[in-house]
Amino acid sequence: MQENTISADNVGIIAPKTAHFSEPLTLASGNALPNFDIVYETYGKLNAAGSNAILICHALSGDHHVAGYHRAQDKKPGWWDNAIGRGKAIDTNRFFVVCPNNIGGCSGSTGPLSTNPETGHRYGPDFPLVTVKDWVKTQALLARHLGIEVWAAVIGGSLGGMQCLEWSIAYPDRLRHAFVIAAAPKLSTQNIAFNEVARLAIRSDQNFKQGHYYEDDKQPELGLMLARMLGHITYLSDDVLDEKFGRELRDGKIKFGYDAEFQIESYLRYQGRSFVDRFDANSYLLLTKVLDYFDPASAAGGDLSKAMQPATAEFLVISFSSDWRFSPERSQQIVSALLDADKCVSYIEIQSKQGHDSFLMPIPRYHQIMRTALDRIAEELDIVCL
Amino acid sequence: MQENTISADNVGIIAPKTAHFSEPLTLASGNALPNFDIVYETYGKLNAAGSNAILICHALSGDHHVAGYHRAQDKKPGWWDNAIGRGKAIDTNRFFVVCPNNIGGCSGSTGPLSTNPETGHRYGPDFPLVTVKDWVKTQALLARHLGIEVWAAVIGGSLGGMQCLEWSIAYPDRLRHAFVIAAAPKLSTQNIAFNEVARLAIRSDQNFKQGHYYEDDKQPELGLMLARMLGHITYLSDDVLDEKFGRELRDGKIKFGYDAEFQIESYLRYQGRSFVDRFDANSYLLLTKVLDYFDPASAAGGDLSKAMQPATAEFLVISFSSDWRFSPERSQQIVSALLDADKCVSYIEIQSKQGHDSFLMPIPRYHQIMRTALDRIAEELDIVCL
Repeated sequence: MQENTISADNVGIIAPKTAHFSEPLTLASGNALPNFDIVYETYGKLNAAGSNAILICHALSGDHHVAGYHRAQDKKPGWWDNAIGRGKAIDTNRFFVVCPNNIGGCSGSTGPLSTNPETGHRYGPDFPLVTVKDWVKTQALLARHLGIEVWAAVIGGSLGGMQCLEWSIAYPDRLRHAFVIAAAPKLSTQNIAFNEVARLAIRSDQNFKQGHYYEDDKQPELGLMLARMLGHITYLSDDVLDEKFGRELRDGKIKFGYDAEFQIESYLRYQGRSFVDRFDANSYLLLTKVLDYFDPASAAGGDLSKAMQPATAEFLVISFSSDWRFSPERSQQIVSALLDADKCVSYIEIQSKQGHDSFLMPIPRYHQIMRTALDRIAEELDIVCL
Repeated sequence: MQENTISADNVGIIAPKTAHFSEPLTLASGNALPNFDIVYETYGKLNAAGSNAILICHALSGDHHVAGYHRAQDKKPGWWDNAIGRGKAIDTNRFFVVCPNNIGGCSGSTGPLSTNPETGHRYGPDFPLVTVKDWVKTQALLARHLGIEVWAAVIGGSLGGMQCLEWSIAYPDRLRHAFVIAAAPKLSTQNIAFNEVARLAIRSDQNFKQGHYYEDDKQPELGLMLARMLGHITYLSDDVLDEKFGRELRDGKIKFGYDAEFQIESYLRYQGRSFVDRFDANSYLLLTKVLDYFDPASAAGGDLSKAMQPATAEFLVISFSSDWRFSPERSQQIVSALLDADKCVSYIEIQSKQGHDSFLMPIPRYHQIMRTALDRIAEELDIVCL
C-alpha cells in the first residue's frame, strides 16, 4: 500500500486513546450505565498552566478522529483536518485539542455495539437513549480525567454546536469561549419530520428485527442507506446540487427504467452505501433522537434567553448563507437570546454555496474568523507556541 | 350513513365517465399501449359554440375527481372543490370543466392496475413509463372525443402546471389560455434526489417483489408510506409545520423511545398510512418518473424560451411565497422564458404560509386572480351563464 506524504502542517499519525469510567452514569432519561468508555484523540500539548485546551464536539455522524491519520496508508485524514493542525485555523502548535467520540455512537465509546456488563451481550436496541446534556456530562468527566479544569474554547458545528450551548449552561465556569457553528437552539418541526422518516426507513427494514440484527450479521442496510441519502440531501444546498450534478444523465439519455439514470441518483446511492459500511443502525436511530430532544429553552418555559442566563463564556456564532437545514435565521435566534441575556457574543454569516456541509469546508473567510478569534484567546490567556 | 347537505354552489353528485380509445398509443419511450381508457369527470355544460371548455390537469397524487361528490354520504368532495363550482373562481355556471385521470395512475384510467390485453394479467411493473407529452397527447384525444376543438383554458398546479406548458407547445392552436400554477420548467437536482429516495423506499420494501406484489395481495405498504411522508414534508412550508405542530409532544413529555413522541410524527405516519389505502405503489413510482423526465427545454438545447416559441396561448403564471418545492424563482424562470419569446404572460406571487400545498387552498387573493382572469376570458369569448 502506498503511504501518504504527510504535509508539515498535519498533526501526523495519531493513536486514539480510551478513558474508562467505572462509576455508574445516570442519564437524563433516568436510566443509568453501570460504567462507560470514551474513546478520544488529542493533538498538541497541554501547557503547564492547563490553559490551552480546546474541546471539539462532533456532529451526527462524526467521531473522535478529527485530524491526522491513524496509519500512513489511510486515504483520508480526520473529518476536520482542514481546520486543525500546525499553523492551521485551530493551531495545534499553541492549543491542546481534544475530541471524544460521544456515547451512544459506534466508533469505540460505549454504545449499542458495546457489551452490556449486566447481560454479557451487546446493548443493541437496549442501549438507553441519551441527550446532549448526558454527552456534556461525560465530556466534563473526560476533562477532569485529562486534568483540564477550564477549556480555552469548546467548538462544534451542527449537533456539535448544540453541545457548545449546553456546555455554557451546564458548566459555565469550565469554558472561556464557545464557537457555535451552523447550529440551532432546537430542531424545527421540519427537521424532526425528516428524522422521523429516516428512523422509520431503518425500523421498517426487514433486517432490522427490532434492533436485534447483530446475531444474523445482517445490518438493516437498505433502511440505513435511505436514512443517509435523505440526510445528505438536507446537508447540501439546492444550488450546489444543481451545480455539481444538475440533470446530467449517467448514459447521456433517458432509459425509461428504475436504474439510476441521473448522476445525482448514483451519487446518493453511493453515499448511502458507503455509510452503511461505517455506521451502526441502532446508533443512527439514537443520534437522531439526541437531535430531536435538544431544546434548552424548554427548561426555562420556552425562553432561550432565560435558559442561557447561567452562561459566562464569550460566544462566537457562525452561520452559512446556503444552509437550509440550520439556516442563518436559526443562528440569529441564538444570538438574539444571548444579547437579551446580556452575554458577550459575536456573530458572522459566511457566504457559501455548500449548504449545511459548509461547516466542514475550508472556506477562507470562515477559517480566518476562527483563527483571529483564537489569536485573541491565545493573547488573553498568555498561550504561546510550545 | 349521514348524508351531506350539499351547498348551492357545489356541482353536486357526479358520476365519472370512461372514454375508451381502441387505437394503439405510441409513447415517448417508443413503447405502445394497444388501447387505453381515460376516466374523467365534467361539470357544467359545453355551450353550442364549444367555446367554454376548461381542462383541469391534476398533479402527482390527484385524479379526475376534482369537484362535487360521488355519493351523498361522501365525507369529502373532489380535491379542488373550493375552486370549482357554481359561482366559484372556476365558475361551472359559465364554463364546462373537464378533468381526466392520467394514464399510468391508479384511479381508473389505464395504468399498472389495468389488465394488459396481450397477457390477460395486470400490467403491474410492466406498464411502460410515460411522460407529460404522452399525457397531453391522450388529453388531446379526449378533447376530440368530447367535441372540444379549442380549450378556453388549460389549468393545472404543480405537475398539472407542467401539463399546461406542454399543451401550449404541443397543441398551440387548441388552447387560448394556460394557467400555470406552482410549477417549474423542470425538476431541480434536489427535487430528483427526493424522488429517488422515495422510489428506493418503495423498491426496497420486502413486499415490493420487483413490482409483482398483486398476487400476494400485499402492497409494499411501509415503502409507499415512507415515500408519501417524505413527499408531504416537501409540500408544506417549514413555517406552517412549526405553526401547526411545533415541538408539541403527544403525551406532554419525552418518553425516550421510538413510538411517535412529537405530534408531527403521528401526523406524518397518519398521512402515510392513509395514502397507502388509496394509491398503488407501481403508479407512484411511475408518476415520480414523469416528474423527473419533464424538461421541455432539453429539446431546444436547454433554451426554454426557444422551446416555448410555438405557444400562442396567453399565460397566467401563479406562484406562492412559501413554496420551497417549486419556489417563486422557478415560476419566474417560466415567465422570463415566455417574455424572451415575446409571449403574452401575466405573473403573480401569492403571499401564503402553506408551502407548495397553497395551490390547493382557498386563498382569497389567489382565487380572485383566477376569477378575474376567467371573467375576462368569458367576455372575450362571449361566454354567458347557461
